[in-house]
Amino acid sequence: MLTDPALRSWIDIAPGHPFPLQNLPFGVFEREATAGAPGTGPRLGVAIGSYVLDLYAVQQQGFFDGVGLLAGLPPKVLRRRSLNRFIGLGRPVWRAVRQRLSELLRHDNPELRDHEDAVRACLLRQTDVQLLQPIKPRNYTDFYSSIEHATNVGSMFRDPANALLPNWRHLPVAYHGRASSIVVSGTPICRPQGQRKAPDAEAPTFGPSQQLDFELEVGFVVGKGTTLGSPVPIAEAEDHIFGVLLFNDWSARDLQSWEYAPLGPFLGKNFGSSVSPWVVTMDALEPFRVPGPAQLPTPLPYLQVPGPHHFDLQLEVALLPAGATEEVVISQTNFRHLYWSMAQQLAHHASNGCNLEVGDLYASGTISGPTPDSLGSMLELAWRGTRPLPLPDGSERSFLLDGDTVIMRGYGELSNGVRIGFGEVRGMVLAGL
Amino acid sequence: MLTDPALRSWIDIAPGHPFPLQNLPFGVFEREATAGAPGTGPRLGVAIGSYVLDLYAVQQQGFFDGVGLLAGLPPKVLRRRSLNRFIGLGRPVWRAVRQRLSELLRHDNPELRDHEDAVRACLLRQTDVQLLQPIKPRNYTDFYSSIEHATNVGSMFRDPANALLPNWRHLPVAYHGRASSIVVSGTPICRPQGQRKAPDAEAPTFGPSQQLDFELEVGFVVGKGTTLGSPVPIAEAEDHIFGVLLFNDWSARDLQSWEYAPLGPFLGKNFGSSVSPWVVTMDALEPFRVPGPAQLPTPLPYLQVPGPHHFDLQLEVALLPAGATEEVVISQTNFRHLYWSMAQQLAHHASNGCNLEVGDLYASGTISGPTPDSLGSMLELAWRGTRPLPLPDGSERSFLLDGDTVIMRGYGELSNGVRIGFGEVRGMVLAGL
Repeated sequence: MLTDPALRSWIDIAPGHPFPLQNLPFGVFEREATAGAPGTGPRLGVAIGSYVLDLYAVQQQGFFDGVGLLAGLPPKVLRRRSLNRFIGLGRPVWRAVRQRLSELLRHDNPELRDHEDAVRACLLRQTDVQLLQPIKPRNYTDFYSSIEHATNVGSMFRDPANALLPNWRHLPVAYHGRASSIVVSGTPICRPQGQRKAPDAEAPTFGPSQQLDFELEVGFVVGKGTTLGSPVPIAEAEDHIFGVLLFNDWSARDLQSWEYAPLGPFLGKNFGSSVSPWVVTMDALEPFRVPGPAQLPTPLPYLQVPGPHHFDLQLEVALLPAGATEEVVISQTNFRHLYWSMAQQLAHHASNGCNLEVGDLYASGTISGPTPDSLGSMLELAWRGTRPLPLPDGSERSFLLDGDTVIMRGYGELSNGVRIGFGEVRGMVLAGL
Repeated sequence: MLTDPALRSWIDIAPGHPFPLQNLPFGVFEREATAGAPGTGPRLGVAIGSYVLDLYAVQQQGFFDGVGLLAGLPPKVLRRRSLNRFIGLGRPVWRAVRQRLSELLRHDNPELRDHEDAVRACLLRQTDVQLLQPIKPRNYTDFYSSIEHATNVGSMFRDPANALLPNWRHLPVAYHGRASSIVVSGTPICRPQGQRKAPDAEAPTFGPSQQLDFELEVGFVVGKGTTLGSPVPIAEAEDHIFGVLLFNDWSARDLQSWEYAPLGPFLGKNFGSSVSPWVVTMDALEPFRVPGPAQLPTPLPYLQVPGPHHFDLQLEVALLPAGATEEVVISQTNFRHLYWSMAQQLAHHASNGCNLEVGDLYASGTISGPTPDSLGSMLELAWRGTRPLPLPDGSERSFLLDGDTVIMRGYGELSNGVRIGFGEVRGMVLAGL
C-alpha cells in the first residue's frame, strides 16, 4: 500500500510537497510550553504534509493497540531525545509503524480523521514545534564518493593530470569525522578560527577562517549494528541502513589545506556539521533505485553487488545571501551521480571488522555532478576563488560571508509527480566568538 | 596529604607496585555471580595495591556520610558501566573522593581497617573481578605528537631529507578515530582483513593484514566539556582533563598505507584500540611535571603556555610471543619525549570551537624516543621489515603474528621509589573470522 503513488491522505497536502502519505519520514520534536498549553518534552514524530504526527500521542490514543508488533511498543521509546532506541527495535517495527500510520492517514480511513479530539492530540503544525536533531550518532564517517568532486579537488590542489589518487577507484575513501559537533537544521554555524598559511607565506597565522564553505552531502543512518570483528557481506549491507538524510559538511578550506597532510581533515571540519530533521526510510526510497555509473576497474569481490543500489534523488543548494530577502539556487545535482553506493560504503566500512552501531551516521562526501552548475561546494562552484559566483544582488561569492544562509533540499519524484522529499537542511553563518 | 610520598596504607602493597596509596586511579568493574555470592553488576572502583575498592559499597557502608560534597553523591552514579557520569560531577567531587579514600586507607586510620565486615564488603581482589572499559567515549581523537615517531614514519614512507611535513612544528597534527571500537585491556584483537597493494603490484588484493602492528600511546580523558563555538584558552586546558591511561592504537600498516591518501587513516586503525582499565588522575601525576622539549619555531600564541606541562612517565612495551611463556621487553621510552603537551593538544582541538564532551578520549600518537630501543611501534623497531627484531626464542618479528600478546606498562617514580602506575594494557592477536 505504501508504494501506491496515487494514494492520498485526508490531510491536505500540496502537490510536490516533500512529505506526502508515501514518505512518512521519522524525526524528533518538542513543543515548548505556552500560556495555553504545557510543553510536550521530546517526542518521536512523523512528517505528513506541513504537520508532524506525534507518535507518543498516537500510541496513547490507542491507535497501536492490538496492531501486531506495535501492541508491545514501549511508550518510553517514543519520548526520547533521539530516534536511536526506536531504530534499535529493528526493521519489522519501523515497517509496522509506517504501515499503521499510512492506514490511519489515508483519505478513506475514518479511525483518526473523524475524531476531532484525537486529531488535536496527535497532529501538530510543524511551525508550532521545534524539530530536534533526529539521531545522536556515536560514530560519524564521511566518505569521498563523488568522482566529479574528487577529480575537481585533486585538480585544484594537486595535479589535473593525475587528479584521482591511485586508490580512489578501488575503494570508497573515507575518514572519521566528529560526532559531537553535528547539529540540526536551523542551528547557526560560528565561523571557526584556526591556523592557515598561504603557500607563499613564511609562517602560519591564526584567525577567523577566510574560506568558509559548505558541502552538499547525503548521509545514511545505521539501523542494525554489528559486533567487533564481524564484516558485513555486501548483499546484506542495505539491511543495516535505517534511512537517509541531508547533510551539510561545513568546511574551512584554509584551515583544512594547511592541516590535512598526512592524517586528513580535522579542525577544518569539526566545528559543525548540519543534518536535516527528517530521516527518510529506505522503504520510502525504494521507487528511486537506479544503477550507478560503470565502475572501472571492477571492484574487488567484497564490493561487488548485483542490482541497482544507487538512488535517483534530485538535490539542490540555495543561498540566501546576507541581507537579501530572496534565496538563489546555486547548484542542482543528483544523488545518483555518486560512484560508490551506500551498500559499497557500508560493506567497505565493516570489511575489517569495525563494528557498526545503531544511529551511526555515514555521509556521502560532497556530491558534484558533471556540469559547472551541479557542483556541491563553493570551492568548486567558484573554482578556488578564481571564478567568483555572481549573485542577483550584484555581489559575488568565492566563499561564505557572515550572515549568509545555506539551504539544501532533495527529493525523489514518482511517476505521477508525487515527491518523496527530505525537507531541508539550513544554516546561517555567524561571526565567531 | 595525597602528595606525601612516605604515607602508607594498612593494605599491604609491595614496593614498586603501580597502585600505592598516592595513586588511587578510577575504573569500573563487575563481579560475576558465583556459587557462594551474587554478582555485583557494574560498579565504580579505585585500585589500591592488588585490590579494588568498591565505591558503591564504600558509600553503602556510610563512609561518605557527612563528608562535604560526598554526602550528596547519587548512588546510581557509582553503579554505572562507565565513569562518564561520575566524571561529569566535576573536579571537586573527584578530588573529594580521592581525599576521603586516602584517609580511609592510610595505615593509622581504623575507620575501615578495623571493621572486618566493612572491609569484606568494600575490598575485592582484582583477580576476583572483571575490569571493564573505564570510559565510554563519544569522541576519540588521535594526535601525532612525537617528533621522533613522525620523523621516522616520514623517513620511511616519504623522504628522509624532508621527513616532517611543513605544518608539523606549527600545530599538533591529529585525526578523528573510531570511538566504538575501543576495548579494554585483555580483549583479544582480531587480525583485520582489507585491501592492500604493494608498490610494484598492478592491482590491490583483499585478505588478512600482513603488517599488523601496535602503537604505544598515552591517552587523556576529558573531564569538563565545552559548548560548540567556545574555544579553551590554553591556560585553562588542563582544567578540562580528568586523567590519563595507556592506549594501544593497533594498526594494519598494509591497509593504512594503501588507503590513507588523502584523507588519513581509516580501516587500518578502526578495527580495535585498547585502553588500560585504570584512569590515573591529573592530581596523582602532579609530582611528575617536567618541561617539554624546546619548540622551534615558537608556536602561535594560542599554543603558548608558561610552566611545565609535560610529564616524566616511564613507558615500556613487552611482547609475549605466540607459544612462549616469558615476555620480552622490546621498547622503553618516556612520555616526556612528546613534542606537544596535552594542554597544547586540547587547546588546539578546541581552538576552532569544536565542542569537547566529558569522557572524550584524546591519545598522544605513538611515543617514540631518540634511541633504537625506545621506538613505540613495530614498524619503527623493525624499520619497515628491513631489520626484523630478534626474540629470545630464536624467532624474529617484523610485524605481529597470530597468538602474539602485546603488553604496555607505565609509571612515574617518586623520590622514595614509590611508583604511580597505570597497570597495563594487554591484548592478544587472534586470526580473523
